[in-house]
Amino acid sequence: MKKIDICLSPDLIHQFDLHESVAVVIDILRASSTITTAIGHGAEAIRLVETVAECKVFKEEGYIAAGERDGKKVRGFDLGNSPYDFINSEIEDKKIALTTTNGTNALMKAKGALQVLTGSFLNYTALLSYIEKLPCDVLLVCAGWKGKVNLEDTLFAGAVVYGLKQLFEYGSDVPLMAVNYYKQAKDNLKLAVEGSSHVQRLMGMGMERDIDYCLKFDEYKVIPILKGLNITKMKLSDMLF
Amino acid sequence: MKKIDICLSPDLIHQFDLHESVAVVIDILRASSTITTAIGHGAEAIRLVETVAECKVFKEEGYIAAGERDGKKVRGFDLGNSPYDFINSEIEDKKIALTTTNGTNALMKAKGALQVLTGSFLNYTALLSYIEKLPCDVLLVCAGWKGKVNLEDTLFAGAVVYGLKQLFEYGSDVPLMAVNYYKQAKDNLKLAVEGSSHVQRLMGMGMERDIDYCLKFDEYKVIPILKGLNITKMKLSDMLF
Repeated sequence: MKKIDICLSPDLIHQFDLHESVAVVIDILRASSTITTAIGHGAEAIRLVETVAECKVFKEEGYIAAGERDGKKVRGFDLGNSPYDFINSEIEDKKIALTTTNGTNALMKAKGALQVLTGSFLNYTALLSYIEKLPCDVLLVCAGWKGKVNLEDTLFAGAVVYGLKQLFEYGSDVPLMAVNYYKQAKDNLKLAVEGSSHVQRLMGMGMERDIDYCLKFDEYKVIPILKGLNITKMKLSDMLF
Repeated sequence: MKKIDICLSPDLIHQFDLHESVAVVIDILRASSTITTAIGHGAEAIRLVETVAECKVFKEEGYIAAGERDGKKVRGFDLGNSPYDFINSEIEDKKIALTTTNGTNALMKAKGALQVLTGSFLNYTALLSYIEKLPCDVLLVCAGWKGKVNLEDTLFAGAVVYGLKQLFEYGSDVPLMAVNYYKQAKDNLKLAVEGSSHVQRLMGMGMERDIDYCLKFDEYKVIPILKGLNITKMKLSDMLF
């Protein structure tokens, strides 16, 4: 039977056999939610870059420079990492260079997988519909906060396992734990994530609106897929079945 | 305020500042339960060794050789890793050389801490009474299964956080997640751990009796403490307050 597993931190990625799996990178607050929003609003590609300096080089080449450090927009950039920055007709058909604290790192570490997708509540059903049909194992990779296991990413991983029902066997105890945690939390996700250190950090920065948005289900039907260093919208020809 | 945090896998230990913390190593099935039992039954010291060959050298020097590989007693050893092997008057005042799959590794990785203790349901209240009074941070280090996050160790870490109530602030989201998981599970721990891959593995080996035993609260009042490579019973003079 196909297996599903959850890597709770990018620092644990060596424990998993990426080569046989499709990886779904999860950084609910906010990289994977922002990427979903940008792709959903027609961005042609999102180029992941590691450093602020590199991002600025891409800006000189015509990219929109976007990203945050420690939750704040980088000075001189066009956009931050708030998904609201990408609900914006000006990004349609544009290329975006994006650097974030956590999400970029997790995406880079997942690169050995058969495919690397990003997942968020915002594209939950689209993601589920795709991975349910996959002929291979699936690994959910939580970005966490600076590598540390966090609540909101674990909760979303649990939501995915919950949605898959019985089609996959669990590769470790973590899917069982995450799905039980999600069941306990699902009737009030906002309440469940309010104890999270990252949520409190963002709320302290006045970003409650972002949090509410990132917990919305199914605002978009797109699946972002990593190709080389670019994230684009998954096309029919990308599907592994 | 003092902090409490949980390291869900020895592979994440680099994320924590061990030098300022007392570490509690948790390997419910079965190293930390077995160590508690052996110390509770009067073993003078438990020497942790990495390899089976090394354990045999200690046997030649008069130690009792104990340990398991993949859940089974090593051939030629006096004792396995079942706690029942240590409910045994012959271990009183004896030195034991112990090698296990998971627990030894976690103990070794925690060695940079101010003190390294072991925790299990079997010495839950004794452990809580001590760490509540500590003037420093506490890190609960789950051994997991071959480094992978597991259910029973996470659950026990949650039980510790639950018992501590409000005296410590949480160092990350993990204590919050673990305590919520424990609250959900505490009325039927056996049921809660039955989904664990390791529990199923042990049950398949006919070790249900071990599992029931390892989930018992407060069979012993001892706190095992690591000194160099030996685990002994904590004495008054070891206490950090």
